[in-house]
Amino acid sequence: MKILITSGGTSEKIDQVRSITNHASGNLGKIMAELFLKNGHQVTLVTTKSAVKPDAQAGLNIKLVSDVASLQETLEPLVKSHQVLIHSMAVSDYRPVYMTDLAELQTTKDFSQLLNKKNSETKISSAADNQVLFLKKNPKIISLVKEWNPDIRLIGFKLLVDVPKEELWEVARSSLKRNQAELIVANDLLDINEDQHLGYLVDENTQEPARTKQEIAQKIYERISKHD
Amino acid sequence: MKILITSGGTSEKIDQVRSITNHASGNLGKIMAELFLKNGHQVTLVTTKSAVKPDAQAGLNIKLVSDVASLQETLEPLVKSHQVLIHSMAVSDYRPVYMTDLAELQTTKDFSQLLNKKNSETKISSAADNQVLFLKKNPKIISLVKEWNPDIRLIGFKLLVDVPKEELWEVARSSLKRNQAELIVANDLLDINEDQHLGYLVDENTQEPARTKQEIAQKIYERISKHD
Repeated sequence: MKILITSGGTSEKIDQVRSITNHASGNLGKIMAELFLKNGHQVTLVTTKSAVKPDAQAGLNIKLVSDVASLQETLEPLVKSHQVLIHSMAVSDYRPVYMTDLAELQTTKDFSQLLNKKNSETKISSAADNQVLFLKKNPKIISLVKEWNPDIRLIGFKLLVDVPKEELWEVARSSLKRNQAELIVANDLLDINEDQHLGYLVDENTQEPARTKQEIAQKIYERISKHD
Repeated sequence: MKILITSGGTSEKIDQVRSITNHASGNLGKIMAELFLKNGHQVTLVTTKSAVKPDAQAGLNIKLVSDVASLQETLEPLVKSHQVLIHSMAVSDYRPVYMTDLAELQTTKDFSQLLNKKNSETKISSAADNQVLFLKKNPKIISLVKEWNPDIRLIGFKLLVDVPKEELWEVARSSLKRNQAELIVANDLLDINEDQHLGYLVDENTQEPARTKQEIAQKIYERISKHD
């Protein structure tokens, strides 16, 4: 099979020297890629410069992206040419559009105008005591996947922080339906550390727990293989 | 001599999953640390988890920091116990304090109130079409160094983007005087790429150019040694 995996976290530039970055090591994506490669599948890994990656090897193709715009541009043709997408990348919900100070805010009546302004400086000045950053919502990449390729099998990820497990599963199940995924891996940041990575493989009716990145990768691999 | 070097870039958390990060690889700090170590000096390197670092070796002590608050806390006692500080870290000018949406902005009269609010959610909701992030200025760490230890020799760095060289030198010289540094290394982001790193060693009267990270490190080493 041709397996498409996303990993790492996107970054959105504020200016030439600063970005808003979503934290993600790329470890789980690396483990999944290696598992599919070991079992003879072709893997395309869409990831970031700073994420950990498998060593170069036959069957592996790596594509680097930075922000959500570059992710979308890279992913669309790949989604059309693969049978499975495992979308574990931490994607930026918002992108910076304009940075200003409180003085401009006080003299602005309609704040939506500020969303259409752009900073002219390449490195925004650090003179003011405070800054105000306006951000716009990014497109939800996972919601575009089935538009690009209705036949692709989609495994999504949902990360929440410090919520009851029932809420975590419910949010995952809602994403499952909305994005026509066959599985959402739901995890809570509080359950992730160097030694463990508690995740739940959530489908329409069940939520199967896995305790480590290796176990999450293995269980995803088994699900994908079973219905192959 | 006991040499204190900072490298990499600080990150300021927006919430548990996102940060504003200043880009810096840590390469120059690594090269400088290795050069001083090779010549028999003791080096303390204050850097970040993601920055590149020299291999563990005798004479080298590495301290990890994340945001400006942790940098300040770590640096103060070290500045008091070292003879030289080479402060090449890219330090965040501002830290996020409160994220809201346009609706709250429209109903707020005094925006400075929003600077005292805090988000209660651990991961800020991504429901709104837009977000507005309020940031506060961080303390300028370089301006505290001589308060902590009037006798330390201070080498600072100044990064600008796309400015005429005369302006770059002038801004560096102003930082030199304001912070009582003996040298400011001034560079323009446009002059930095994989093959070159054009920097100017700016003191009161001269600006000596260097074309690579190795050359910048070597020239700093010579200046420090000459007046030892």
